[in-house]
Amino acid sequence: MKIRAAVLVLLVGLLCASCWAQGFKAQPAPTNVPGADFPRLNSDMSATFRVQAERAQKVQLLLGLTPYDMVKGPDGVWEVTTKPLSPGFYYYEISVDGFNSNDPGSRVFFAAKKEVSGLEVPGAESDFFAIKDVPHGTVRTMWYPSKTTGETRRIFVYTPPGYDQTTSRYPVLYLQHGFGEDEAGWSDQGHENFILDNLIAAGKAKPMIIVNENGLPGRDFQSPSPPKPGTNERRDFVRDVARYFMNDPYTSFDKIVSRDLIPFIDANLRTIPDREHRAFAGLSMGGAQTFRIGFNHLDQFAYLGAFSPAIDISDISKDYNGMLANAENINKELRLLWLGIGTEDFLFGPVKESHETLQKAGIKHVWVESSGAHVWTVWRKYLADFAPGLFQ
Amino acid sequence: MKIRAAVLVLLVGLLCASCWAQGFKAQPAPTNVPGADFPRLNSDMSATFRVQAERAQKVQLLLGLTPYDMVKGPDGVWEVTTKPLSPGFYYYEISVDGFNSNDPGSRVFFAAKKEVSGLEVPGAESDFFAIKDVPHGTVRTMWYPSKTTGETRRIFVYTPPGYDQTTSRYPVLYLQHGFGEDEAGWSDQGHENFILDNLIAAGKAKPMIIVNENGLPGRDFQSPSPPKPGTNERRDFVRDVARYFMNDPYTSFDKIVSRDLIPFIDANLRTIPDREHRAFAGLSMGGAQTFRIGFNHLDQFAYLGAFSPAIDISDISKDYNGMLANAENINKELRLLWLGIGTEDFLFGPVKESHETLQKAGIKHVWVESSGAHVWTVWRKYLADFAPGLFQ
Repeated sequence: MKIRAAVLVLLVGLLCASCWAQGFKAQPAPTNVPGADFPRLNSDMSATFRVQAERAQKVQLLLGLTPYDMVKGPDGVWEVTTKPLSPGFYYYEISVDGFNSNDPGSRVFFAAKKEVSGLEVPGAESDFFAIKDVPHGTVRTMWYPSKTTGETRRIFVYTPPGYDQTTSRYPVLYLQHGFGEDEAGWSDQGHENFILDNLIAAGKAKPMIIVNENGLPGRDFQSPSPPKPGTNERRDFVRDVARYFMNDPYTSFDKIVSRDLIPFIDANLRTIPDREHRAFAGLSMGGAQTFRIGFNHLDQFAYLGAFSPAIDISDISKDYNGMLANAENINKELRLLWLGIGTEDFLFGPVKESHETLQKAGIKHVWVESSGAHVWTVWRKYLADFAPGLFQ
Repeated sequence: MKIRAAVLVLLVGLLCASCWAQGFKAQPAPTNVPGADFPRLNSDMSATFRVQAERAQKVQLLLGLTPYDMVKGPDGVWEVTTKPLSPGFYYYEISVDGFNSNDPGSRVFFAAKKEVSGLEVPGAESDFFAIKDVPHGTVRTMWYPSKTTGETRRIFVYTPPGYDQTTSRYPVLYLQHGFGEDEAGWSDQGHENFILDNLIAAGKAKPMIIVNENGLPGRDFQSPSPPKPGTNERRDFVRDVARYFMNDPYTSFDKIVSRDLIPFIDANLRTIPDREHRAFAGLSMGGAQTFRIGFNHLDQFAYLGAFSPAIDISDISKDYNGMLANAENINKELRLLWLGIGTEDFLFGPVKESHETLQKAGIKHVWVESSGAHVWTVWRKYLADFAPGLFQ
């Protein structure tokens, strides 16, 4: 699987380079608001940003690890061009004299518990989530009552092409976002609907329903604090994050899914309401929720996917529901356990060790060690890799 | 109708004052991102805003006609408290040394062709669009092919409670946003779904489908330029706006609706596909589109609603499809023509004259002269007033 991923990355890289070389013209990014000329993608795959700030002293583009200083022109317009960017999706901010906010030229996406500018850099490898001339499914925004929280909660539900034209029943994938994002993430940032439309049209995935809930119930959850500058706490911080989402504050989401959400979906959509036709997957925090909810409810799910999950299963006392001592039963119950992470991901260490722990315990799983960091560019690909293995 | 509106405003005002007087505590606005303590609504109905901007020289809150200067605290946090605000929905921006962008504490809404912070100030009169313990409809995001533009276009479609549980067919309201907004406006800012959920649960409106398209096809439309500061062009600017959206650049949206959208909706949702079960309505630019599309396609629509429309039908040469000379036929064909505007709306003059022109021409219509300006606070109420008159 590791080799397969590496070959894929190489092929995509070659295709992409050839596509961009063939007369690419500078153009507004696809994530721009309608009519905005900037941000602009250049032929060398760099991006040029412009913002108006007549009286500002210092303006920076916060994209990637190192801020870019923007330069003021005579008309109060600040500009900067980035280094060449790999195709993919980037969150970014503009910082004006210490005020960090959005670029008015771009659409925003919910991330880091706020609305954050997004930049899509397209390439040949964007093809799998492009809007093509194929039948399109629907993304439904629905509201349902949760006994666990006492709220009316909002969910997003993808129904596949043909759902409204037939009386067929469908399997369901419960698919979760990461920390600081919300139930809109998998459609807005992830394009789950176009990924599935294209896979289904190509006969590569079974038509399925996808449900996205908000994995951060309650408003006051905080992630672990990053290390103080100047100290050498990096390793501990990574372990903190990897373990944090395994802890008890996250039990309420388990109850929401298993007691409130699944019964609502099965009562209100044409599902096949059994474990053999139900999957759970998620990214980062949602990957930890996959382990917690999946292994606590093997009666409800037969397929699990953890994309760059915030997990640390290197210690037998930290496993889920005693899973490490029950390999035989788990291997009998689960049709697929999928675990993947990029080698540049800050969580790579604990996740790779978790994979090795699972291996030692004899728990069968698909292990994908891909290129890439802790970003949507990777998670979209993981969905396209994971979905064809479901409900077969 | 004018008296009815005035009594309503008075009653709502009294109820609201009593509600706020009964121990209201300062609290985050409902439009805040989860976990944000600011903006904060105070017991006197003012709002307090805070943003971080350590090195800024001048920070302003742009809400309403006069900017509020924010004051810097010792920790680089700028703060200001507004005058008391009427319940309703406000777009606003933060200006930092000439950079106008969003408040990271609030959700954004698509307006003015970009993502703009929104502030909801609730009151007793917000009850009609509150999320209540009633059956909820679904807001579907769908994609369909347009021959007119050659694009796959995104639409929002409200289906009423029970749509998925029955095989009934439903009438359809095509409902449009204003200039600079998009197809998400009527659900995000307008809460069309909760308004209809509540009306349907109370037996006040027929269950119906609502369709929202993007009324600004193409990316380069510009509205008329506002007058130059220091000149006295105000009156002409208002006429410019009132007439602009009646002009030819907007014919492509007419074709999109009549040739592409209606056939797609009738083929893909359980509609009653005839004019007696089809309505068109819109606000501002969408109100102009109501007149253009409605009167050009009386074979397709029997109900029309224009909410604070950008129209100026004071000149017989500027009417739609010769409507002013065809009162008898129009009165026979239309079951409802609804026209409303607030007395504080900058378009009040030309719209009131349009009403008088219709009256003189003998075209029957409901005329609503309410309080309020050119804002969503008014348009939500208009939908709640208009929808009960549909399909009866």
